[in-house]
Amino acid sequence: MSEFASITGRFACEVHWGDCDPAGIIFYPTYFRWMDAATWAFMASVGYDPRRMRAEQLAMPLVSASCQFLFPAKHGDRCEVRSRIARFGGASFVVAHDIVRADGSELAKGSETRVWGRFVNGPGSAMKSRQIPEDIKALFLAK
Amino acid sequence: MSEFASITGRFACEVHWGDCDPAGIIFYPTYFRWMDAATWAFMASVGYDPRRMRAEQLAMPLVSASCQFLFPAKHGDRCEVRSRIARFGGASFVVAHDIVRADGSELAKGSETRVWGRFVNGPGSAMKSRQIPEDIKALFLAK
Amino acid sequence: MSEFASITGRFACEVHWGDCDPAGIIFYPTYFRWMDAATWAFMASVGYDPRRMRAEQLAMPLVSASCQFLFPAKHGDRCEVRSRIARFGGASFVVAHDIVRADGSELAKGSETRVWGRFVNGPGSAMKSRQIPEDIKALFLAK
Amino acid sequence: MSEFASITGRFACEVHWGDCDPAGIIFYPTYFRWMDAATWAFMASVGYDPRRMRAEQLAMPLVSASCQFLFPAKHGDRCEVRSRIARFGGASFVVAHDIVRADGSELAKGSETRVWGRFVNGPGSAMKSRQIPEDIKALFLAK
Repeated sequence: MSEFASITGRFACEVHWGDCDPAGIIFYPTYFRWMDAATWAFMASVGYDPRRMRAEQLAMPLVSASCQFLFPAKHGDRCEVRSRIARFGGASFVVAHDIVRADGSELAKGSETRVWGRFVNGPGSAMKSRQIPEDIKALFLAK
Repeated sequence: MSEFASITGRFACEVHWGDCDPAGIIFYPTYFRWMDAATWAFMASVGYDPRRMRAEQLAMPLVSASCQFLFPAKHGDRCEVRSRIARFGGASFVVAHDIVRADGSELAKGSETRVWGRFVNGPGSAMKSRQIPEDIKALFLAK
Repeated sequence: MSEFASITGRFACEVHWGDCDPAGIIFYPTYFRWMDAATWAFMASVGYDPRRMRAEQLAMPLVSASCQFLFPAKHGDRCEVRSRIARFGGASFVVAHDIVRADGSELAKGSETRVWGRFVNGPGSAMKSRQIPEDIKALFLAK
Repeated sequence: MSEFASITGRFACEVHWGDCDPAGIIFYPTYFRWMDAATWAFMASVGYDPRRMRAEQLAMPLVSASCQFLFPAKHGDRCEVRSRIARFGGASFVVAHDIVRADGSELAKGSETRVWGRFVNGPGSAMKSRQIPEDIKALFLAK
């Protein structure tokens, strides 16, 4: 797998009261919730919105996820998750995410490794990994 | 629908760091997460555990939910949700929940109105409400 | 407490993958998370954003919350929470929320009863309820 | 930092309905919520429970977190997070977590890097990192 020249997806989010903990800063699993939502939004931005993903019984189960926390976000912070495909493998892919506050401060940077899969027998049934089609990869290629 | 002489289900839970907000107390949707989990545990306690619910394609979609917050829970508080069937209707039922701290203090009391339903075509497909079978009702009757 | 002629707050939200449950629809505590965030956004819209709330050590602890679920939201649904002050009491107030999908369908309607309070000794310290100042009430009055 | 001969903490948890997504399996940020709660429970097991952490204004902010997902957990799965100190640095430490299902299957393995810190001016105020005291380290040493 080599580095991929990816377009960038943008997912707007905001730190809500309930996303913060008694230290008054973001509770860290919130970043992973955002990264997951950002990946779905990234897929939607190239034509694969939730409705289509459902209709075609496509899934993107996780292999691993990680995040570095650079600066603590606070309640009310408006943020953007900037996502790009870091790598495409045969049946797996890596999405790199930068989480940036409205003033440009980088709050966190994370990564998700996912498998391209399909529900064998409708949503909720077993998933099977598949080769990522070349036309899917092409959708994410920066021009 | 008249009052039902219900057994009591007991669901143990604890206030985690991430369940609390910057005020240092429980973020209130946490109580609803607990009530939902308590209802599932209550079903499991009479023989309908998640595996069986899935196998029989049973569902319990919500009609409404409410909660009164009596005393603020804090990080580390060990609690119990005490659940009982407040009413059985034709296709709907009401679960009443008392949320009690280990020292006996009542923290919150809530209620969920649910429909007894079935997935028409497997999990994730449309749901259809059904008459609640008498043998299900009997499982919750206090002796 | 009589009905209050309130302005309407608008809070945009979207049903994310992780907000849904194995039935393929929104997990109901998500609505309460949205209502809480919508109330904070409503406060911000009249000049009390999170930063100011923190600086003035203001708090809005809950007395009760309820929600009716009218139509199941699905992954990808774009929604809006429309909030208004239903009533102002002495130290408490009621926020009514309508949750509406982008196509105009009403998904849920809820209500939160809150106390107007202040942290006695900084965020995370004890809270004390206070009379709601008339100038705060005036900010929410429809002209 | 060299490998540390750590005791093992044990945190019981269960996959609830609302922890699962429309694929019918655990929504991955749930694992991070569990790891966070497991670290707090691990601290409590050596005498630093939430009440004491609060009283001594101690904090454990995150530097990074990662998780590998080995096998998908389902609704109703009873699990245990087994935690140990992988490394103690000067002011930081690494907690390694194995998430194991009741039947012994390993579902996920993760890691958190945290800083040992203190709120400068009460909960919710700024945090400052501190050298980890040797007597704290000793509490986690396997005999």
